[in-house]
Amino acid sequence: METPDTAAKPPERPESTAAAEAAEENAAAPTGVAAQDWKTASADPQYRAAVVDLLGALAYGELAAFERLAEDAKLAPTLADKAELAKMASAEFHHFEQLRDRLAAVGAEPTEAMDPFVEALDGFHKQTAPSDWLEGLVKAYVGDSIASDFYREVAARLDVDTRRLVLGVLDDTGHASFAVEKVRAAIEAEPRVGGRLALWARRLMGEALSQSQRVVADRDALSTMLVGGVADGFDLAEVGRMFSRITEAHTKRMAALGLAA
Amino acid sequence: METPDTAAKPPERPESTAAAEAAEENAAAPTGVAAQDWKTASADPQYRAAVVDLLGALAYGELAAFERLAEDAKLAPTLADKAELAKMASAEFHHFEQLRDRLAAVGAEPTEAMDPFVEALDGFHKQTAPSDWLEGLVKAYVGDSIASDFYREVAARLDVDTRRLVLGVLDDTGHASFAVEKVRAAIEAEPRVGGRLALWARRLMGEALSQSQRVVADRDALSTMLVGGVADGFDLAEVGRMFSRITEAHTKRMAALGLAA
Repeated sequence: METPDTAAKPPERPESTAAAEAAEENAAAPTGVAAQDWKTASADPQYRAAVVDLLGALAYGELAAFERLAEDAKLAPTLADKAELAKMASAEFHHFEQLRDRLAAVGAEPTEAMDPFVEALDGFHKQTAPSDWLEGLVKAYVGDSIASDFYREVAARLDVDTRRLVLGVLDDTGHASFAVEKVRAAIEAEPRVGGRLALWARRLMGEALSQSQRVVADRDALSTMLVGGVADGFDLAEVGRMFSRITEAHTKRMAALGLAA
Repeated sequence: METPDTAAKPPERPESTAAAEAAEENAAAPTGVAAQDWKTASADPQYRAAVVDLLGALAYGELAAFERLAEDAKLAPTLADKAELAKMASAEFHHFEQLRDRLAAVGAEPTEAMDPFVEALDGFHKQTAPSDWLEGLVKAYVGDSIASDFYREVAARLDVDTRRLVLGVLDDTGHASFAVEKVRAAIEAEPRVGGRLALWARRLMGEALSQSQRVVADRDALSTMLVGGVADGFDLAEVGRMFSRITEAHTKRMAALGLAA
């Protein structure tokens, strides 16, 4: 139950930082919604609906992450590992609480806001149930990193108040360094584990993309915000660039883990 | 995700309060260890070993409760119910953290202190895996109430510092009122559910007793503290009375739920 060795800093840091900087750069001279507070921005009902969608998706994502991590804790090889995963699960739950409270504060019914995303997120977790401890760690790491990159990109387009909340709940809960340390040690101890985990990571990425497409197809308000139209939405070219940035960061993270992406 | 209706106060409150008052009464004019702080009391190596055992058992109990509640959250019929169980699980985890930190602070290795109790607690949870949402709620309610009654009784015999910690982590995490409300409503809606749940509660109590006996047989320091010898331990007659008090409180709680104990 020690703090992760600071010398064993996760290799994904540079990528995450790059994504965060890209996001910050976009926000550097905020115009439009990104310069407004919630009160002003939410006067536009389409923007308001998009943000409720976004918070609902994020909230259910945190609740599902809580469940997934608590489930993976059962696979932990030691009591200390189990406690570490329980800690992460608990941190996800507190993020969920913040998002739920925010939904309620802006007058949205939290359950209603989350409902549209239950199927896709549950589907993702069902299709990607880890069969052992290492697969669970890779999933937590890959899934969180991709979700975090995505939400950071979107956050730059949000009003000041919502942006602060979203960036707050994306704060590293310690998953990354813990997972990276354990996975690397396992591959070092038995190199052929790397091949199996690389395949697993590819499956995760594929499943994540297919479920995202489903959500985007279903949720008009959210998609319209993401792809121009409302607020300072991306245009389609920008969405393309965002996806390449996220995929690139993923590839680099996998390489640093010793996995071919 | 509302706060539980305060009008629907859990019927077990009088019992819990009675147990707490009994414990407080014992502590009212504390003598011996109960009047000492940890520093003084722990000079006796046998007392120290017994407290490390007690905190280890309690710590693993909280970690196991976290896992059990997180698991039960999957059976929740609604998102609000799921969030409620995740909240309780997270509260148990924070209790675990306090106990683990205390073990470390008194120079005990938390994992080592918990290890001797893993088998019995895992055994209990394995033998009593709920098959549905209501069984999970009854288990959380019955299990927590009994454990809480027991630890409150023991707490009265502990040094001031350990007593404060133990009573702190037994603070109601909201299980009781939530479980009672849901179980009662289910029995009202379909009375024959009551028969099944009454059987279930009896099985839980039997399994809890059999696992406790195992622990008591295995852990000398702990048993010696409980049954006289060290500190202000109970004598055997007092242990008998304690068990009747706990069983009686359980029977009353079951009756209040509409279940024959």
